[in-house]
Amino acid sequence: MFHQATKLIVITENFKRRAVCDIIDAGGATGYTLVPAGGKGLHHFHATSDKASLVDDFANIKIEVVCRERARAEKIALRILAECFHDYPGIMYLENVEVLRPEHF
Amino acid sequence: MFHQATKLIVITENFKRRAVCDIIDAGGATGYTLVPAGGKGLHHFHATSDKASLVDDFANIKIEVVCRERARAEKIALRILAECFHDYPGIMYLENVEVLRPEHF
Amino acid sequence: MFHQATKLIVITENFKRRAVCDIIDAGGATGYTLVPAGGKGLHHFHATSDKASLVDDFANIKIEVVCRERARAEKIALRILAECFHDYPGIMYLENVEVLRPEHF
Repeated sequence: MFHQATKLIVITENFKRRAVCDIIDAGGATGYTLVPAGGKGLHHFHATSDKASLVDDFANIKIEVVCRERARAEKIALRILAECFHDYPGIMYLENVEVLRPEHF
Repeated sequence: MFHQATKLIVITENFKRRAVCDIIDAGGATGYTLVPAGGKGLHHFHATSDKASLVDDFANIKIEVVCRERARAEKIALRILAECFHDYPGIMYLENVEVLRPEHF
Repeated sequence: MFHQATKLIVITENFKRRAVCDIIDAGGATGYTLVPAGGKGLHHFHATSDKASLVDDFANIKIEVVCRERARAEKIALRILAECFHDYPGIMYLENVEVLRPEHF
């Protein structure tokens, strides 16, 4: 009764959120989840050595999209990469998940 | 030294949190993690087109449960589906994970 | 174009965050993501039956590290287990993910 699906995870700065979510909507996903996030590192967004300031806030956003079709998740990911991530190092990856009600995704 | 386990992820409105967590406890899980969440879409909880208001708060909750036995995660998921999700479109899915200390899960 | 990678997830108390993140940095990871978290249970951090107080705050932290090499994620996990988790029951697990730009991880 569980069905294979693909989750796309995007972690980005808040000011990129609207652009990323518009691509998700345009890509035909049925929805997305937002979680506050912070971080550090080469693949993150605060290129500073002041660690104390980094870990005390959640100025970034983690966006999760579950797609029934892997091809849809891939297509959305590639468009985000092309349109939102060319000028700074946001991160993005896929995970395999299993959903109960595939008609919702 | 890593052992296969199953993570159940539930994203729901805050007012459903107690009901969901009671089912998790009753199902014999050893614990759960809560993360603030927001979202949008058909499989989400704010059936409105006012996008601006959606993305500025985290009024939903993401609940994660890691179970050593997949059957336990499935049973908890099915009970949540039957008892909490009949009247609105919350989302729920499973992921394969690997834990270090299986006796904790 | 997607490349296999390994995500390490650590959920711990805030006061352990610096110690865990220092191990992640020392282990050669290129970065990590922080998400506010709360929780309950044997594998969690509030050994109390006062459920009401548990679910209203996010006093814990969820730390996620994506590593191109699984061996690196495992090594970091084992060092966290040895150095940070001996005195209380934090949780930690691995997930398989797929990244678009492996040079970032």
